[in-house]
Amino acid sequence: MEKITIKKDLFCLPWTQTILGTHLEGNVNFMALDWLTRVNYQPPMLGICVNRNNASSTAILDTQEFSVNVPNEDMVEITDYTGIVSGKSVDKSDLFPVFYGELKAAPMITSCPLTMECKLVKTVELPTNNFFIGEIINIYTEEQFLTDGKPDVKKIKPFLLTMPDNQFWSIGKNVGKAWSQGVAMRDRLNKGQKA
Amino acid sequence: MEKITIKKDLFCLPWTQTILGTHLEGNVNFMALDWLTRVNYQPPMLGICVNRNNASSTAILDTQEFSVNVPNEDMVEITDYTGIVSGKSVDKSDLFPVFYGELKAAPMITSCPLTMECKLVKTVELPTNNFFIGEIINIYTEEQFLTDGKPDVKKIKPFLLTMPDNQFWSIGKNVGKAWSQGVAMRDRLNKGQKA
Repeated sequence: MEKITIKKDLFCLPWTQTILGTHLEGNVNFMALDWLTRVNYQPPMLGICVNRNNASSTAILDTQEFSVNVPNEDMVEITDYTGIVSGKSVDKSDLFPVFYGELKAAPMITSCPLTMECKLVKTVELPTNNFFIGEIINIYTEEQFLTDGKPDVKKIKPFLLTMPDNQFWSIGKNVGKAWSQGVAMRDRLNKGQKA
Repeated sequence: MEKITIKKDLFCLPWTQTILGTHLEGNVNFMALDWLTRVNYQPPMLGICVNRNNASSTAILDTQEFSVNVPNEDMVEITDYTGIVSGKSVDKSDLFPVFYGELKAAPMITSCPLTMECKLVKTVELPTNNFFIGEIINIYTEEQFLTDGKPDVKKIKPFLLTMPDNQFWSIGKNVGKAWSQGVAMRDRLNKGQKA
């Protein structure tokens, strides 16, 4: 079928929904955060994209620390709320019970099944956003979210955001095993068989 | 329940599975790519994380261009294959039919429901990886993947990767509407009601 072009911000890669935790002028603050990724393998680093005008951007530049919190499906409403009111005008410090790890300005949300505390290592200034690269100092979870000692996505129950339809989605069914199904294909190709 | 720390690369944020397209010494090359995010709002930019030793890293530094292709659930096996054989030793140029947009070295996969061509604007060198920031020049899709003129995730059917369990997942059920459920909560709080 014919290819067509669409508006350049109209694309719906699903992003995992997280909540960014910072200290804004000494006060705990939170913001819904969708644009983030691993940016380095060793040591493990996360990169997060924050609008330069957001209070969270000021907070990170000030303290050089932040947390990334992964809410579960039961936290959709409160997560969305953190993204629609600004820390400049609304005090969000009482929204969640928090705990701290090694860092002083990376408040983590106790009710989130998975949380990370990060230390800023680099800020990339882009036209409308700051891209903050942080080294993951520690990851926190609970025994109930592990299977064989590893985080289990079906127990953690994160959710996803797609834009521009602005819908939240759960994780669906298993559709395969990575670094496994491709091995079988490689072996067939090596034997001169069809892919 | 008690919080515990886990190994720092043991966390399962679901990543949307994509395939990176490049020209490696003039030859079309592909690689499974999971670590990517929007990094700037206007103009729309994507950042992608590639191991420095990967052939794709050399290719992007050489041509300053790349494509990001979103495969659907039917493409799990071939997508996985692109991630387990290196372009240094295996010619992957015939794996997919490709098309081009404005750029000369950003081959896009015809069978992928959504593809983007990107021009490199900045390379962030990190300890083991290069983080390439590209401006999105064009996004391509087909009429059949749109609803009301916008990409529809339920028609595109992308899939996700979780690590370290290395499982692929489909998109599940709708669990809410973004910038909407939080508005109702804000209104309740503004009226002095409970969250």
